[in-house]
Amino acid sequence: MKKLNTADFDKLEKRYRSQLINSISGVKSGNLIGTKNIEGQTNLAVFNSVVHIGSDPALIAFIQRPTTVERHTYENIIATEKYTINAIHHEIIYQAHQTAARYMREESEFDETSLETEYLDDFFAPFVKGSPLQFSLKLEEEISIKTNDTKLIIGRVESLYFDEKLLEKDGSLSLDKGSINAILGLDTYLSIKKTAKLSYAKPDRPLKNLLK
Amino acid sequence: MKKLNTADFDKLEKRYRSQLINSISGVKSGNLIGTKNIEGQTNLAVFNSVVHIGSDPALIAFIQRPTTVERHTYENIIATEKYTINAIHHEIIYQAHQTAARYMREESEFDETSLETEYLDDFFAPFVKGSPLQFSLKLEEEISIKTNDTKLIIGRVESLYFDEKLLEKDGSLSLDKGSINAILGLDTYLSIKKTAKLSYAKPDRPLKNLLK
Repeated sequence: MKKLNTADFDKLEKRYRSQLINSISGVKSGNLIGTKNIEGQTNLAVFNSVVHIGSDPALIAFIQRPTTVERHTYENIIATEKYTINAIHHEIIYQAHQTAARYMREESEFDETSLETEYLDDFFAPFVKGSPLQFSLKLEEEISIKTNDTKLIIGRVESLYFDEKLLEKDGSLSLDKGSINAILGLDTYLSIKKTAKLSYAKPDRPLKNLLK
Repeated sequence: MKKLNTADFDKLEKRYRSQLINSISGVKSGNLIGTKNIEGQTNLAVFNSVVHIGSDPALIAFIQRPTTVERHTYENIIATEKYTINAIHHEIIYQAHQTAARYMREESEFDETSLETEYLDDFFAPFVKGSPLQFSLKLEEEISIKTNDTKLIIGRVESLYFDEKLLEKDGSLSLDKGSINAILGLDTYLSIKKTAKLSYAKPDRPLKNLLK
């Protein structure tokens, strides 16, 4: 086993350190956040920090990096309180990654990447057409993380859309059936394959693999 | 596409709703958090909400569910400010999942699951022996999420240990080479496979797949 401590971290070159530390939390979700400003300019950005907060009410959050530079997604969410989250499936990983480029405020990542907007049920913010799992959110809570000036942005899910073939009998969604990718570190896209679906854990009762 | 809105969510049976909403944020990390109380009693718990907060300083967080029932991991972290995070590799997914069972405070999930403790560099909290990626943390910030009474627990990484075969030239860790699993929803374990490692995104520059 290789070992590094805080003093070792401080000796690492900035990009190397970022690649390393971004790898240690484990596999990440891969999502596109769609927004629109009050002038009607759309924006789309890839995020690998979307995280489940609660099911009742349905709350989903993401980590917003420091807003010391222009952050169009964040600005639009604060101004309009509406945004969409769209899963990244295998067919669009290049386009999804390209949304991370530093485009100007007056440029839309939809135009730049040829991903298509889709407006569902008159929701204000655009969805990504073709994504097999999409939902709309209303901003619920914005929390400042003092230690490094990031924020936790929490939204309440309003409407949820998904390809019916993903739905299992117990309510879970088989993201693998939609070729939905995950992200490793900063730049690596992953396909997924189920190894086990385990029964509810109780003391002194053996687990069953429900896939078998 | 199937569609559900907030009114539909409220009609769903509780467990079904939990399975569904836990699936929509995307693929999750799979980690075991190791703690010890001041009497020396160890605790180990599976978490699917570990998330990267920042690289400099190295900050990793997780979502703590409401502490209206006994939460041994949380109690130990608040009391001792020390804990470990250990990646779940394929060989231990049953044992990892079993740590979710509601054991008594005086029972250790290490004993109950036959996962072995390991103490590295005199750190107070136990690591999971055999995990290919492990790190120790000091509690840095505890943030209350008002909307649903959960918490974001942020720790600063102190020491990092990983199997050398995971390390790539750019500093990233290939979790697939350690058979590290991801989690889907509440109970499904996933193996991962790289589909692309994409170059740094800039406007008007085509992306390269660095795996090729």
